[in-house]
Amino acid sequence: MQEQRQKVERLRLIRLGPFGQEQPGLFLGGSAHLLKGEQLPGGDYGESFFRAGGFRWLRERLETGAIWTEAAAATLRLGAPVARPSKLIAVGLNYAAHAAEVQMQAPERPILFMKASTSLSGPFDAIPLPLGAEKLDYEAELAVVIGREGIAIQAQEAAAYIAGYSILNDVSERAWQLERKGQWVKGKSYDGFAPMGPVLLEPARAAENERFEVRTWVNGKLRQEASTAQMLLDVPALIAEISSYMRLLPGDIIATGTPAGVGMGLQPPRFLRAGDRVRMQLSGLGEMEQEVRSVLPIS
Amino acid sequence: MQEQRQKVERLRLIRLGPFGQEQPGLFLGGSAHLLKGEQLPGGDYGESFFRAGGFRWLRERLETGAIWTEAAAATLRLGAPVARPSKLIAVGLNYAAHAAEVQMQAPERPILFMKASTSLSGPFDAIPLPLGAEKLDYEAELAVVIGREGIAIQAQEAAAYIAGYSILNDVSERAWQLERKGQWVKGKSYDGFAPMGPVLLEPARAAENERFEVRTWVNGKLRQEASTAQMLLDVPALIAEISSYMRLLPGDIIATGTPAGVGMGLQPPRFLRAGDRVRMQLSGLGEMEQEVRSVLPIS
Repeated sequence: MQEQRQKVERLRLIRLGPFGQEQPGLFLGGSAHLLKGEQLPGGDYGESFFRAGGFRWLRERLETGAIWTEAAAATLRLGAPVARPSKLIAVGLNYAAHAAEVQMQAPERPILFMKASTSLSGPFDAIPLPLGAEKLDYEAELAVVIGREGIAIQAQEAAAYIAGYSILNDVSERAWQLERKGQWVKGKSYDGFAPMGPVLLEPARAAENERFEVRTWVNGKLRQEASTAQMLLDVPALIAEISSYMRLLPGDIIATGTPAGVGMGLQPPRFLRAGDRVRMQLSGLGEMEQEVRSVLPIS
Repeated sequence: MQEQRQKVERLRLIRLGPFGQEQPGLFLGGSAHLLKGEQLPGGDYGESFFRAGGFRWLRERLETGAIWTEAAAATLRLGAPVARPSKLIAVGLNYAAHAAEVQMQAPERPILFMKASTSLSGPFDAIPLPLGAEKLDYEAELAVVIGREGIAIQAQEAAAYIAGYSILNDVSERAWQLERKGQWVKGKSYDGFAPMGPVLLEPARAAENERFEVRTWVNGKLRQEASTAQMLLDVPALIAEISSYMRLLPGDIIATGTPAGVGMGLQPPRFLRAGDRVRMQLSGLGEMEQEVRSVLPIS
């Protein structure tokens, strides 16, 4: 009975260890486990692993015993559940209520921008408040990791390109993003501006369009509450749109846009300050929490 | 005499072979050579190689004979001279005359945007004219490759972060870039939208601010002619500006902006069509040429 249930359980990938030295693991039965045995293609949950089949590859080896798991020390840091990708693509204004709160018009086609992949961090890492930052803000988002290489992917085929789901906080410095006469990338890319995790969830077998309830609390106060069902473009439509402009590689991350309730949308706007705690939850994906900390940049 | 001259010759990195399977080499005495002997850190001109010291690492091994070169078949394709980087960052409106021709105001701070790193291609590869593209354009740019990791780098220290120089054609689909209500990345990221090469040139020992003459011909007709000395922000200032927003990693590429003379700036605008040939030259960096070809996207 127990074995049967374990077999059909959706796998949850995690990565454990110091920043830049994370080891692949699994979240099982409420606790963190490290992988033992056969090495993953590429040694990590990255491009080579997803290219080899990702969850399918891992499940086969768990079933044959080529890979097994071992409980990890509870003190080990959680990293982002995937390795640094070739790109971290983000979607702007993909919820009508969020577009309205920031006084922008929801565009006919989604706004796309990049976050530097170096901004990826763990789900409980601190969010840095860089020197000179004035308008630090949070954005809870469903993150989709790509499992197959493709360009000009059709929306009706896009579900097959999804490797899994996670939570991403699209941390934004609004002055850098919007007041520096540049492109949004400026305010989206600092170290630690993309906490992700805690897990990468295997997609459900049949569901092509899974829904997640999104919630954000700042210092315990509920600020965002929505469903990904309210996205203007759903995940398959986003994959089709993005891949019409660029090639997607296995392991690439798409942050699918944030619902209403960001600090910039409050009246008056309220930005993050040192000591603030941001907690985000997506149903079925767990939750993550970051504390904002003033930091000196380290070259 | 000959040996003395070879010893002080600035090294020119090249990569040879089919797309995605390029091998590291050197351009020596007017022809292409492959590297033999000890493997590069990471096996390619990429993050690990530059992190290990790049040109200095290679020169030491050439001098001790741990690495030597062997003439390559003339038929081998040239790839981009560096492996796919963690990011390909581009600068907009960094020449006053170019800003004027596209009827934009040169900003106080440079516009920064990303090109998908998957857009990198070889210096003589065809430029694809994707299905649905209407306003394909070229932009000759000095490309700077980063040699050291850093964030919040000071301009006066930035020269030490330069690994080398190359030419990059920042191919742009103007309708996708400017008329899709998105960010510029949409029109800058398709496969083949970043031909780069032919070489990565080692920086001069003393010069902190090297100058290059930039020229572009389309179908033999001179379209761009300027000096990188006319850049509004020079290379050290760009490294300082960019790294104030994001961490730079060894191997990252900065495309430093294009001078006047792009197709969009002509009266009336003239965009690239299938069969057009774009030739670009930067003094000391050689030249590259691409033919525009209508292609069907390949998933």
